[in-house]
Amino acid sequence: MAEVRNKQVLFKDYISGFPKESDMYISTDKTICLKVPEGSNKVLVKNLYLSCDPYMRLLMQKIEGPSVFTSFTPGSVIIGYGVAKVLDSGHPNFKKGDLVWGTTGWEEYSLITAPDFLFKIEHTDVPLSYYTGILGMPGMTAYVGFYEICNPKKGEYVFVSAASGAVGQLVGQFAKLMGCYVVGSAGSKEKVDLLKNKFGFDEAFNYKEEHDLDAALKRYCPEGIDIYFENVGGKMLDAVLLNMRNLGRIAVCGQVSQYNLVEPEGVKNLMCLIHKRVRMEGLRVFDYFPQYSKFLDIVLPSIREGKITYVEDIAEGLESGPAALIGLFSGRNVGKQLVVVARE
Amino acid sequence: MAEVRNKQVLFKDYISGFPKESDMYISTDKTICLKVPEGSNKVLVKNLYLSCDPYMRLLMQKIEGPSVFTSFTPGSVIIGYGVAKVLDSGHPNFKKGDLVWGTTGWEEYSLITAPDFLFKIEHTDVPLSYYTGILGMPGMTAYVGFYEICNPKKGEYVFVSAASGAVGQLVGQFAKLMGCYVVGSAGSKEKVDLLKNKFGFDEAFNYKEEHDLDAALKRYCPEGIDIYFENVGGKMLDAVLLNMRNLGRIAVCGQVSQYNLVEPEGVKNLMCLIHKRVRMEGLRVFDYFPQYSKFLDIVLPSIREGKITYVEDIAEGLESGPAALIGLFSGRNVGKQLVVVARE
Repeated sequence: MAEVRNKQVLFKDYISGFPKESDMYISTDKTICLKVPEGSNKVLVKNLYLSCDPYMRLLMQKIEGPSVFTSFTPGSVIIGYGVAKVLDSGHPNFKKGDLVWGTTGWEEYSLITAPDFLFKIEHTDVPLSYYTGILGMPGMTAYVGFYEICNPKKGEYVFVSAASGAVGQLVGQFAKLMGCYVVGSAGSKEKVDLLKNKFGFDEAFNYKEEHDLDAALKRYCPEGIDIYFENVGGKMLDAVLLNMRNLGRIAVCGQVSQYNLVEPEGVKNLMCLIHKRVRMEGLRVFDYFPQYSKFLDIVLPSIREGKITYVEDIAEGLESGPAALIGLFSGRNVGKQLVVVARE
Repeated sequence: MAEVRNKQVLFKDYISGFPKESDMYISTDKTICLKVPEGSNKVLVKNLYLSCDPYMRLLMQKIEGPSVFTSFTPGSVIIGYGVAKVLDSGHPNFKKGDLVWGTTGWEEYSLITAPDFLFKIEHTDVPLSYYTGILGMPGMTAYVGFYEICNPKKGEYVFVSAASGAVGQLVGQFAKLMGCYVVGSAGSKEKVDLLKNKFGFDEAFNYKEEHDLDAALKRYCPEGIDIYFENVGGKMLDAVLLNMRNLGRIAVCGQVSQYNLVEPEGVKNLMCLIHKRVRMEGLRVFDYFPQYSKFLDIVLPSIREGKITYVEDIAEGLESGPAALIGLFSGRNVGKQLVVVARE
């Protein structure tokens, strides 16, 4: 059986603190057989687009005790979400030529051993890369976090942190479609401009230029905040708590400002939960994957009709993967960060 | 019109840090007319039982900005919940001889200027003092916090902090009636014994004897925690977050460990909200006061049938009020702390 070279991005070893490009390395040592083993239900794919997501930082440290996450294995390939093309399949739901998205490896070809977690891509009139973002895990995250956790109502005040990111840009647009007043924070002037001019946020600010986040929120959200879509944690969460309105809701989606700290910052203003009767609720998107087709039915028409737009930051080539992933934590990316391994 | 002497407990001045008895003082300078002003809808009461509640500490500091709470006024009488007898009334709902509970002053007689917030006491086959506790604000707090916020199910694992207090002892008993496994923490051996032997908790521990609260929770709640009734905040909350089960719920009722700190302790483990999809929700009991009669319909029969018991710590005389209130913050009280001004 013909074997081909399989270029890979491998994980070096567990880290603490900020990740570096050198925590990963490129290897061309391995070859792979482009057929699934006889009699197995595995799926062999060619990877096209790989998704860079903040949660991946959490897998770069040794996770103690039971967790929803499994750490990367030192010396093994980085695992993440991606879009791929089926080259061979032992699974009845997939056949050669199918396009899929789901969990795959950071390598040219992957043998998927748990294909039940792959989604078949049925709609290809939109960019295929969207299945790493707006039509993939981040899109579902924005959708269920905003609609299912936050229970939004027309006219409410919504604040989104990391608002130009893969999830945030969608939350803001969903909120505008719902008739909410929407404010976002991001880490550069370019991103703030995007929020206001491309995604239609009512207001936006660069958190790096605000010494006093509480004062900034009082300036940009003078009526307070009914809904906070939490992507960053730490000082921003503490400032938001001071500005929540009665019966406010906080969808806790991520806390990217905390992932590189050895010990998380303490959040001091939780008494605001009592004074304002605020509900704060954590979100794990994979619990909602069974609702994926319902999500597509709602989001695809909005994309086709131009009611929702999506900005991607596309890195070319598997070799650019480590820098692209690391860039998430300095905010280098503008919009959804992904890596093209191959376009077809 | 005859005026009588009106002994009062007055508030000295705004404080920070731990409150002291000397932050209040007894005064017999004032007299009061035992009739309501002609044509007013006010109610003149003789105070019988006064309630000592942890939230009162928050009113001893200057509250900046809009808040649900109003600070005590330096030089004025301490305000709190109490049980009283109507001596005269200009309000159609109340007449001389009625027993009421609600917001009153720490003094022998009070002229209630907002009688719409008084509840008439209809059932006197139970101790009258219960209307400062199990049948008053703390009882409602336990009831709505547990049933409305926590949405409990039979067989779930419940943890209650400050578990022998006015609210905690009820939460634990409600949870046992619901068929839950219930663990409580308290601050002395005597209280731990009460929890296990009088209130029927499955397990209980003295948090002051545990250096590592996370380890203590893992020992007493080895299956984890589905429902946490949060009365204390700070380190206990941080340890609980590490031990929550998937889809757990936290009713944030109070954070008494934080009230005397100039700056609250930071809570570091909020990422657990995401990993375990935990919901954390603040509770203000007065939002639920319209449901008071429904609450009575459920709780009164349980008291009469002996299914629920209630432990009170009764201080005698208005003069004992300051010490009784301060005692809440060192945990001196065993059960619901109240002050008897007069028995009828």
